Amino acid sequence: MIQDSLTTGTSYGRVCSMSELEQPDIDVPALTALLDGKYADIREMTRKNLSEYAHVLDDAIEMPSAEFRERVLELVKAMARTGATGLGFPPEYGGGGDIGASVAGFETMAFGDLSILVKVGVQFGLFGGAILQLGSKNHHDAYIADLVTGDLMGCFAMTETGHGSNVQALGTEAVYEPETREFVITTPDRRSRKDYIGNAAAHASMAVVFAQLRIGGRSEGVHAFVVPIRDEEGHALEGVTIEDDGEKIGLNGVDNGRLSFDHVRVPRSNMLNRYAEVTEDGRYLSEIENVDRRFFTMLGTLIQGRVCVGGAGISASKVALAVAVKYANKRRQFGAPDSDVEELLLDYGMHQRRLLPLLAKTYALHFAQEMLVHELHNVLSTTEAPDRQRRALESRAAGTKALGTWHASRTIQECREACGGAGYLMSNRLGALRADTDVFTTFEGDNHILLQLVAKGLLTDYSSSFGDLDQLGMVRFVANLAVETVVERTSAHKLLERIRDVLPGGNDDKWDQEAGLLDPEYQLAMFRWREEHILSGVARRLKRGMDNGMDTVQVFSQVQDHVIAAGRAHVERLVLEAFVEKNAAMVDSDNKVALNMLCDLFALSTIEADRAFWMEHGRLSSARSKAISREVSSLCRRLRPLAEDLVDAFGIPAEMLKAEMLDDPGAA
Amino acid sequence: MIQDSLTTGTSYGRVCSMSELEQPDIDVPALTALLDGKYADIREMTRKNLSEYAHVLDDAIEMPSAEFRERVLELVKAMARTGATGLGFPPEYGGGGDIGASVAGFETMAFGDLSILVKVGVQFGLFGGAILQLGSKNHHDAYIADLVTGDLMGCFAMTETGHGSNVQALGTEAVYEPETREFVITTPDRRSRKDYIGNAAAHASMAVVFAQLRIGGRSEGVHAFVVPIRDEEGHALEGVTIEDDGEKIGLNGVDNGRLSFDHVRVPRSNMLNRYAEVTEDGRYLSEIENVDRRFFTMLGTLIQGRVCVGGAGISASKVALAVAVKYANKRRQFGAPDSDVEELLLDYGMHQRRLLPLLAKTYALHFAQEMLVHELHNVLSTTEAPDRQRRALESRAAGTKALGTWHASRTIQECREACGGAGYLMSNRLGALRADTDVFTTFEGDNHILLQLVAKGLLTDYSSSFGDLDQLGMVRFVANLAVETVVERTSAHKLLERIRDVLPGGNDDKWDQEAGLLDPEYQLAMFRWREEHILSGVARRLKRGMDNGMDTVQVFSQVQDHVIAAGRAHVERLVLEAFVEKNAAMVDSDNKVALNMLCDLFALSTIEADRAFWMEHGRLSSARSKAISREVSSLCRRLRPLAEDLVDAFGIPAEMLKAEMLDDPGAA
Repeated sequence: MIQDSLTTGTSYGRVCSMSELEQPDIDVPALTALLDGKYADIREMTRKNLSEYAHVLDDAIEMPSAEFRERVLELVKAMARTGATGLGFPPEYGGGGDIGASVAGFETMAFGDLSILVKVGVQFGLFGGAILQLGSKNHHDAYIADLVTGDLMGCFAMTETGHGSNVQALGTEAVYEPETREFVITTPDRRSRKDYIGNAAAHASMAVVFAQLRIGGRSEGVHAFVVPIRDEEGHALEGVTIEDDGEKIGLNGVDNGRLSFDHVRVPRSNMLNRYAEVTEDGRYLSEIENVDRRFFTMLGTLIQGRVCVGGAGISASKVALAVAVKYANKRRQFGAPDSDVEELLLDYGMHQRRLLPLLAKTYALHFAQEMLVHELHNVLSTTEAPDRQRRALESRAAGTKALGTWHASRTIQECREACGGAGYLMSNRLGALRADTDVFTTFEGDNHILLQLVAKGLLTDYSSSFGDLDQLGMVRFVANLAVETVVERTSAHKLLERIRDVLPGGNDDKWDQEAGLLDPEYQLAMFRWREEHILSGVARRLKRGMDNGMDTVQVFSQVQDHVIAAGRAHVERLVLEAFVEKNAAMVDSDNKVALNMLCDLFALSTIEADRAFWMEHGRLSSARSKAISREVSSLCRRLRPLAEDLVDAFGIPAEMLKAEMLDDPGAA
Repeated sequence: MIQDSLTTGTSYGRVCSMSELEQPDIDVPALTALLDGKYADIREMTRKNLSEYAHVLDDAIEMPSAEFRERVLELVKAMARTGATGLGFPPEYGGGGDIGASVAGFETMAFGDLSILVKVGVQFGLFGGAILQLGSKNHHDAYIADLVTGDLMGCFAMTETGHGSNVQALGTEAVYEPETREFVITTPDRRSRKDYIGNAAAHASMAVVFAQLRIGGRSEGVHAFVVPIRDEEGHALEGVTIEDDGEKIGLNGVDNGRLSFDHVRVPRSNMLNRYAEVTEDGRYLSEIENVDRRFFTMLGTLIQGRVCVGGAGISASKVALAVAVKYANKRRQFGAPDSDVEELLLDYGMHQRRLLPLLAKTYALHFAQEMLVHELHNVLSTTEAPDRQRRALESRAAGTKALGTWHASRTIQECREACGGAGYLMSNRLGALRADTDVFTTFEGDNHILLQLVAKGLLTDYSSSFGDLDQLGMVRFVANLAVETVVERTSAHKLLERIRDVLPGGNDDKWDQEAGLLDPEYQLAMFRWREEHILSGVARRLKRGMDNGMDTVQVFSQVQDHVIAAGRAHVERLVLEAFVEKNAAMVDSDNKVALNMLCDLFALSTIEADRAFWMEHGRLSSARSKAISREVSSLCRRLRPLAEDLVDAFGIPAEMLKAEMLDDPGAA
């Protein structure tokens, strides 16, 4: 237990030096309750579902893919019957009417088999979400009740073999014929066939197809159409060609496939017309005049998928860490020459350094994700949130998805290696986690592209007039302003005021000490300064490139790594802020002390990883940089005895850990 | 073409600034010949074998594991009949008598299916290698001719469920009974069952079992015994229990399993007795008196496996890069707003930054591996190489294996992500490469443990009296010397003399320029300085810890990350030296210019990744650090037009790329 008096004068009420403290004693159920938050009941219900269907984890390994796909379909429908998968739909169609709850359920479901999760995401998030968000009442009436029960299975046909991130360049065409009042859907070439489409290879009877709308030879940009693809016996309809994408690295319970259309006709009413429609006589109407803006407004409605994937990545990281920490707390290796007992893996400094910063970052991302879901719920639950707020939300969703899914890949891989040969066996969980989550970094928006989106929002301050520009438009826009103007327009600039007093130059003697490393004001100032500096550097580089007569493509290519670094720095700052704020709001307790230690470890290990940046810019002295590395090691040692409690607090059902190696005396 | 006159005064004859040069024009066949080196004919023969059996790449995905295991067995035997797998065995037993050739063949085979590769490694490298290296003539006569043809299949039973890297702590026992003149082999508990043993679950009829030898109640340490495990019908022999490890992340064509022994009796002659034997009446005899030294001498003979695995990792990286570079040179995404043509992925700066430093490192590792194989061949082909030379070779093999296999994991993963959804489909090569190579980082010695081994060798300067100490023994040894003594004893110390004149302090004005960044003397001095500094820091920390009264376990735990960093810095220096020396020996040509660019990119991107270290130690100014990052980007841009030639030069048979996405117009 710790003394109550250990607070300092910082505005977050955080202790500044804890080296002489006693170790906190974690209250695991209380920490689980804190992590579960507002939707604890939904999470608890989902945990029970997972435990009930735990055998699917073995099915995933034992069944051939064709059989496993059917098993997954069956379980998705079983989940649908419990109401767990329809939480985000309006109650009048059998849904739960609570977007936040639906994301919380999805995140928890990600402790289990991820084919089920992704199939749920495709059916209810992407297909159902497109009908709900892009369609109008007649579409809702026609489809939503059936898709919520799983009676109507559908797919979301956006990506094409040759067109992924650049959705505006899709090749599939939908030509309006006023004579028949139909759209004619066509795949003009192989690079324009729809590809990687979940639910397409076996189960969907309907697709939401994204295609270039053409009326009388004029192009109106990408729009979405409801297109039946299979009859009741499951055969492809006339003009529709369905191919199977076959085996994948993971997620083999999901039937990904390719769709091609050869003059497939659908009635005029099959266009999802919330934002634009075509009259019977072929006039195009939309309340949003600018074509780019209309397109991005449509895409923006699909934000929930990204929030869900990011959350799923964080959940998968929790499962991997639970397995690896528990294993490292049982498995012994080498030892003192005069002792018969070998040391536990987790007592080795390197093993702590490999796992515990990842654990700290998992906690940090958890709280950032919680804040994101809260904002998502608020924005999507009102009829009309301001444009700027929507764009800021899109940016946060994109950034959190990128960081959360990269974190998952890295964490699961490190956990696999930290478990050696045992980690390589599919009878344990890590192999499936690794294979199934791998695509998270590149689907629902490639992570690099998403971080570019974040940076673009920052450079244009989410202003509606520029937010819709693509990357090259952004280059021209920035280049046409004075650098000072760009920097002043950016969100990051507003941070500067908050930094100046807290973060002196790196050569200031006062900062050559270890003092203040554990002060969240200092940590935040470091994160904010980096963000602002990279961002204004991007603006300067873009401008210089254009001034030197390079074309936009060249300029963007050369500045691209800085653009992505700016996006990443921004999102990392948001993550740290979320964690610090969460901790500041807690009442004093041992759990608070432990979370503060995790927050410090997240902040300092993040600074350590990028410490060259601050040194290069005179904001970190050599001595202080080394002190940060020492502090990271010290925090790892202090967190080591808490590690197993900290993974237990995730509340992962025991069946989901399925790690034979944890029960095996071989590990003891 | 480039001018001939572009050389400088450095001892390596390298150009120092190439910014104004014309681009070189790569002669692909000549570069392939350079890479293939001495064993070009063996590599060419293996390429033909791979092409002939190319269908196995599809079998790996389409067949259930049980069936695929049989297919792999069949192909391994087919390869054996060509003589390709027996190159390392003496001619009198049907082998090729050329160790270097056998490694070259193995490396080339790693372009193909990796289950075949690993099964070959188990049968001919581990099982066959143990008989050859640890056995004496009667064992050779009895087994080698049959195992070279594949008529006798065997396994290498060292690792146990609870004992991996710490081989000295194995639990399996072999008790000598003078009455019957037999050894009695027993598995005392579940943590001591042999685990992850390749060939054990289905095909091996014989095992080389590593066990604690006990005679009359006295323990003599770990020794190897030939133990029959299956009868001619494939049933487990009496007292032998065989379990199947089941599905793994990859390598599912290899039948990994678990072996337990319940008082299994083998005759006295079944002990592999090159280094020690037991007389009929139960006396223990060995020419090597020190028990640790005897043990490490036995392990040292198994070095060839590590050399092969490291080489295989480098080959797998080549395949992944060939796929990703070719894809990025076909697939387009986004483009100038006023153009209908989108840009090629490889024209994006970030994409270049993701792939080309990995390509440069692959070349660097290739030449380091070539040098390692050369030394391996020399040491193993003589009857008695000096102890110190053997230890230095073991260290180089351990370090190259660690770097080569980590590089493979990272490279393949980056390539997968760089190919987006296409990279996730098993119809392309990346998924299988990723899954199959994943265990390379932790088998044949966990990479972290291997780098510790490297550092231990450096700290004790491979002296035979201390080389056999384990990590904790190393701690005590170092702590008992004055720090200066340790530093002087280290190999790295000898580097210092070569550094002083080349590498001034970071604040020297002369070095605040970009001058000399492309000078290999500068690059080498940087690598050498880092190695020496980390190593002496380790010595200092070990000593301080012990002086402060901490126990060896604590001290080692706290210094472990520095120990591993020291090992890594050492191996990276060896890799750079190998690349620089290779280039220096080339006659002037465009290929030489291209290789120099790759070498610069390897050196500078390695420095960039760890630039914080040199800045913290006053050996790199902020300005110069930023100049290095700019130079890395610039080298990427200059190498971009050469990228496809550079991967073509690897000479990977087209069938092995098997990347549907490369032929698909969807990517064009």
